[in-house]
Amino acid sequence: MSSTAGQVIKCKAAVAWEAGKPLVIDEVEVAPPQANEVRLKILFTSLCHTDVYFWEAKGQTPLFPRIFGHEAGGIVESVGEGVTDLQPGDHVLPVFTGECKECRHCKSAESNMCDLLRINTDRGVMINDGKTRFSKNGQPIYHFLGTSTFSEYTVCHVGSVSKINRAAPLDKVCILSCGISTGLGATLNVAKPQKGSSVAVFGLGAVGLAAAEGARILGASRIIGVDLNSSRFDEAKKFGVNEFVNPKDHNKPVQEVIADMTDGGVDRAIECTGSVQAMISAFECVHDGWGVAVLVGVPNKDDAFKTHPMNLLNERTLKGTFFGNYKPRSDLPSVVEKYMNKELEVEKFITHSISFSEINKAFELMLQGKAIRCIIRLDS
Amino acid sequence: MSSTAGQVIKCKAAVAWEAGKPLVIDEVEVAPPQANEVRLKILFTSLCHTDVYFWEAKGQTPLFPRIFGHEAGGIVESVGEGVTDLQPGDHVLPVFTGECKECRHCKSAESNMCDLLRINTDRGVMINDGKTRFSKNGQPIYHFLGTSTFSEYTVCHVGSVSKINRAAPLDKVCILSCGISTGLGATLNVAKPQKGSSVAVFGLGAVGLAAAEGARILGASRIIGVDLNSSRFDEAKKFGVNEFVNPKDHNKPVQEVIADMTDGGVDRAIECTGSVQAMISAFECVHDGWGVAVLVGVPNKDDAFKTHPMNLLNERTLKGTFFGNYKPRSDLPSVVEKYMNKELEVEKFITHSISFSEINKAFELMLQGKAIRCIIRLDS
Ligand SMILES: NC(=O)c1ccc[n+]([C@@H]2O[C@H](COP(=O)([O-])OP(=O)(O)OC[C@H]3O[C@@H](n4cnc5c(N)ncnc54)[C@H](O)[C@@H]3O)[C@@H](O)[C@H]2O)c1
Ligand SMILES: NC(=O)c1ccc[n+]([C@@H]2O[C@H](COP(=O)([O-])OP(=O)(O)OC[C@H]3O[C@@H](n4cnc5c(N)ncnc54)[C@H](O)[C@@H]3O)[C@@H](O)[C@H]2O)c1
Ligand SMILES: [Zn+2]
Ligand SMILES: [Zn+2]
Ligand SMILES: [Zn+2]
Ligand SMILES: [Zn+2]
Repeated sequence: MSSTAGQVIKCKAAVAWEAGKPLVIDEVEVAPPQANEVRLKILFTSLCHTDVYFWEAKGQTPLFPRIFGHEAGGIVESVGEGVTDLQPGDHVLPVFTGECKECRHCKSAESNMCDLLRINTDRGVMINDGKTRFSKNGQPIYHFLGTSTFSEYTVCHVGSVSKINRAAPLDKVCILSCGISTGLGATLNVAKPQKGSSVAVFGLGAVGLAAAEGARILGASRIIGVDLNSSRFDEAKKFGVNEFVNPKDHNKPVQEVIADMTDGGVDRAIECTGSVQAMISAFECVHDGWGVAVLVGVPNKDDAFKTHPMNLLNERTLKGTFFGNYKPRSDLPSVVEKYMNKELEVEKFITHSISFSEINKAFELMLQGKAIRCIIRLDS
Repeated sequence: MSSTAGQVIKCKAAVAWEAGKPLVIDEVEVAPPQANEVRLKILFTSLCHTDVYFWEAKGQTPLFPRIFGHEAGGIVESVGEGVTDLQPGDHVLPVFTGECKECRHCKSAESNMCDLLRINTDRGVMINDGKTRFSKNGQPIYHFLGTSTFSEYTVCHVGSVSKINRAAPLDKVCILSCGISTGLGATLNVAKPQKGSSVAVFGLGAVGLAAAEGARILGASRIIGVDLNSSRFDEAKKFGVNEFVNPKDHNKPVQEVIADMTDGGVDRAIECTGSVQAMISAFECVHDGWGVAVLVGVPNKDDAFKTHPMNLLNERTLKGTFFGNYKPRSDLPSVVEKYMNKELEVEKFITHSISFSEINKAFELMLQGKAIRCIIRLDS
């Protein structure tokens, strides 16, 4: 039992008081975990586009003040009633989507879209009592994605916390709790290219680079990176991408360019852009007979995926994935093991590292497209 | 060696002299098979919609005179130069799409879309020399789908002929060479529902009923038949269909009706209509997390398959199939074996049987929607 168990903890958190305004490092109060909740000490966190979208709150319902952050590594400080799977001292990754282990999705071998704990970007409170565990001078501060890792301490539902190998360095594996695993799993769990095959990756952000890393791990021989921004290509070489296409350099659709390069199409395509046009191109550039396209990017509300049904009847497969089809509690520990046994190279995704007090720099770096992942050190 | 080998054979054939006009039983000349060709004695054939479409030639380039027919059973009469896989006396099913065993598709474990012998509805000649093997008084008569089974003798490329168990009754298994295997394979090879799962079948024609038969064989517990024509429902019960939905009976989209019936969607949906609206509904009615939709129906030229990409990202899979993903030479013999060992019930697909001279009746029955399959006996 830690000495803080059952007590309110006062600690530092980076609070977003208003949409689009710099975060403020404030002292907040973090209530103890209730039933099926755990309180975590966060040691390292990183920034993902989803934090930035909801902080900007351009399309979304604004919910402020809020504590963002959902890629992180930490240690269990205390556990609430009924929690048996975790105990103080466990090393964990909080995850933006959970696994209750009891619903139809959790019981299905194929799905990771838990009915109870599936990502919910609008909810700013705990499901237990509909209240927040964060407050400042009695004013509630909202949660984000059930994780809120931009705080020295946070409270999560036990189903949103993945227990990992204690030997894994949290300042590295913390980035495995969202985008990197999403891209990696899209390849390893869904696209599953065979050794020697060809793979096109649309979008060379963190997610696309992780998809390429998956293709490299599985031994794909041609990894074709597609991006509208050619400045992404140099970095992508480190992730096994060995051919490049910028759709802007061609006056025919990129799916035709790729079909020409590959004698009819690639074996697998993985879309990591969020652009519906890229989704259609990714699908139409896979080879008939056996090609599989996997969609990862989050589209806009009114987008329509449109193709001629003949493209499907010619034995192409189209799939989407959410969090790379990983079940957060059951599967994420094995991703950490892939890093531990040197299959997966995590370091190359980490381009920057800053202290907690500099957290707004991470937002700037992301908005400028300069960082793949920037580690924010809460321990320093 | 048969006494006719190497000779021109004079025999009866049902010739389509003009689009949409009754076939005429004529005496035609059938030239001997050339290199990589075989000449077959056809004993039983049946009629499929594709014959009717190209006979009506409403959208298609008309090519007449032509001998239609592509579902049949027969016996090898003689073989051309270089043919080693088949010999006179072998029992065979000619197939509308072939398997050369040498192209990338044939070498892929997943594809049956042979580069050399893939279905070609426009070609009316043999690929060897660009000529026909049929003629009447010196006038060439065109082939159809490389099979032209409405003739006592026909010539096929060896890659379009599947050698089957000699013990199999040709008057039954002849119907396995197109639509029935297409629907069956869509379920057994592509949708692969698990025992106890729910399957929606859109379209209860021969193909859809065969898809339902596949679901019955695999032990699906709910088989939901969807058709705009409720008169199909009674027959469908014999094929394991145990729930029925006519989209016309509801004032919300059929995908919502099915989602309501099944707590969020079926495990598998198989579209066997050719209607793009049904394709979209079939896709959107499968459960998120694990649902798989398989498209079988042949769409119109200008159709667009359209859906919100979120339906994909929620872990649904969309696939199309061609000939149920069966490789004609490698896999069709195993479908015949399924009948031989009583897994697959073929008899219930055969609703009519007529003699060759009555062949135009088969067209009438099909146009009136009265037959699932009508066997045409060339031996009588
Ligand atoms: N499904 C999930 O679980 C999950 C998790 C995390 C992120 N995502 C999504 O994955 C996508 C990628 O995330 P990211 O963090 O790597 O984003 P990013 O913005 O860093 O990278 C996207 C890249 O795509 C490129 N791009 C945009 N439109 C393109 C087009 N039409 N053709 C080719 N390239 C194009 C951009 O230039 C950019 O380099 C986003 O849509 C994000 O929301 C999904
Ligand atoms: N892919 C292949 O290899 C292959 C092979 C053979 C046939 N086919 C195709 O399969 C399809 C079915 O063939 P069939 O011979 O069974 O046809 P069919 O005409 O006998 O049956 C089609 C059924 O679908 C129903 N239907 C039509 N529109 C519908 C809708 N919107 N919703 C619900 N039901 C609807 C009709 O009422 C009919 O009962 C056709 O498109 C055919 O071209 C494909
Ligand atoms: Zn669950
Ligand atoms: Zn994220
Ligand atoms: Zn047919
Ligand atoms: Zn081939």
